[in-house]
Amino acid sequence: MATVERWRVRPGTTLDLSAIDTRDAAAAPGDKEATLEATALLTTRLGELQERLWAEGRRSVLVVLQAMDAGGKDGTVKHIFRAVNPAGARVTSFKAPSAEERAHDFLWRVHAAVPARGEIGIFNRSHYEDVVVVRVDELVPEPVWRARYDAIWAWEHHLAAEGTVIVKLFLHISPEEQAQRFRDRLDDPTKHWKFNRGDLAVRARWDDHQAAYAEAIERTTTDEAPWYVVPADRKWFRNWVVSSILVDTLEAMDPQFPEPADDLSGIEVV
Amino acid sequence: MATVERWRVRPGTTLDLSAIDTRDAAAAPGDKEATLEATALLTTRLGELQERLWAEGRRSVLVVLQAMDAGGKDGTVKHIFRAVNPAGARVTSFKAPSAEERAHDFLWRVHAAVPARGEIGIFNRSHYEDVVVVRVDELVPEPVWRARYDAIWAWEHHLAAEGTVIVKLFLHISPEEQAQRFRDRLDDPTKHWKFNRGDLAVRARWDDHQAAYAEAIERTTTDEAPWYVVPADRKWFRNWVVSSILVDTLEAMDPQFPEPADDLSGIEVV
Repeated sequence: MATVERWRVRPGTTLDLSAIDTRDAAAAPGDKEATLEATALLTTRLGELQERLWAEGRRSVLVVLQAMDAGGKDGTVKHIFRAVNPAGARVTSFKAPSAEERAHDFLWRVHAAVPARGEIGIFNRSHYEDVVVVRVDELVPEPVWRARYDAIWAWEHHLAAEGTVIVKLFLHISPEEQAQRFRDRLDDPTKHWKFNRGDLAVRARWDDHQAAYAEAIERTTTDEAPWYVVPADRKWFRNWVVSSILVDTLEAMDPQFPEPADDLSGIEVV
Repeated sequence: MATVERWRVRPGTTLDLSAIDTRDAAAAPGDKEATLEATALLTTRLGELQERLWAEGRRSVLVVLQAMDAGGKDGTVKHIFRAVNPAGARVTSFKAPSAEERAHDFLWRVHAAVPARGEIGIFNRSHYEDVVVVRVDELVPEPVWRARYDAIWAWEHHLAAEGTVIVKLFLHISPEEQAQRFRDRLDDPTKHWKFNRGDLAVRARWDDHQAAYAEAIERTTTDEAPWYVVPADRKWFRNWVVSSILVDTLEAMDPQFPEPADDLSGIEVV
């Protein structure tokens, strides 16, 4: 397994996303085929660790996924679920907030969706939209979104203190890769529903979004809730990195099968 | 694909569960290996159909799983998730009700967990516990649980009218198979946490539970929310039957990719 430190953003870092190669696969354990094989082993290991986490029932893992459109969030969710038992994992996809959600503070809907003890929760988009999209689209005044960094920090700290290990993944793609994926959607009638013209307006403000992401990541990466920037142009490499990060995280937690609730000695099943 | 009618319980049927062979695999497309191959094809097909359901975004599917302990509910959930995109599927495992849940009517917690339009929802245990376990353990008086058949009927009818297709699966195992699976859990220290002495007390009242299931199934199987009794001693056969039923259900719904929200003609991604 790779040392996942390579992708982790340390507190105090000044982050220049444009300096990070989205096609970088230098750390891969071999060529594409060898990497797929290594990923399969990590997937199996992740499944074992998740079973222990679930059996132990004391702690949880929250995986936050953020990316530009077509950045691979759905594909990453699918990849993670290939490893884990869905009974102990839940994915929540956050869309534009509903009227009821807008009537609450920005952490209300995400708090309601955090994983229970024993579970792995995956956020497909998250409260980070409220310091990125909301900022770029000027949906609230700057003092409002700027104050959210501290609110996020305090909320994630609270979750960590209660036993939730938080892993935040920014799937980093290039504008060229996004263009290619958009064209694939336009070329395939069964993918048209994934596309709307609004995606191009967002794409046109690429640099603004990248700058907002960079600052949000800098301001909210902590030892207890670190951000990782994952080179994501190549899906096979992305999946290997994500698997490595999750296995590393779970191994550090080292969940244990609990003692049985009852003394099981001498039981005969008749 | 098999005709799934074979396992469907028609309205008006008198159900004798003990007359249904839990090891029956006569309908299988071949031996174990051939059946696994057939199941893999069904799994792929199910994934395609789910993508259409999700893209269409108008209807949903609710899969209700019930079984005796060690009957294979978790394994079935895992099998279904092998096929589908977890972003459009959600599993809810119902345990003994919490204080807050007990403070509400018995349909409150399940209603909160039904799938949204486009989703496949899976209930691992369900409101049927409230007419089976609750009955056998005499947790409420008979007139109370008996009135629940009508309440369930009306609630499921409402969901169906709103676009939720309901499929109810009783995974039918023999007491011998349950004993073997319990022994496996006792023999393996990494499975001890799945077992507690209370499971034996439930097992001791096997016939009461089977009778309660038979009546609940008879009273609540409808054309719009049918029950299927799935021979489940052999996991490979069970998975093939479940896949066949789900593919059959989704094919009858025939979900369609929607027209794109915008006119996509002439779009250039630059």
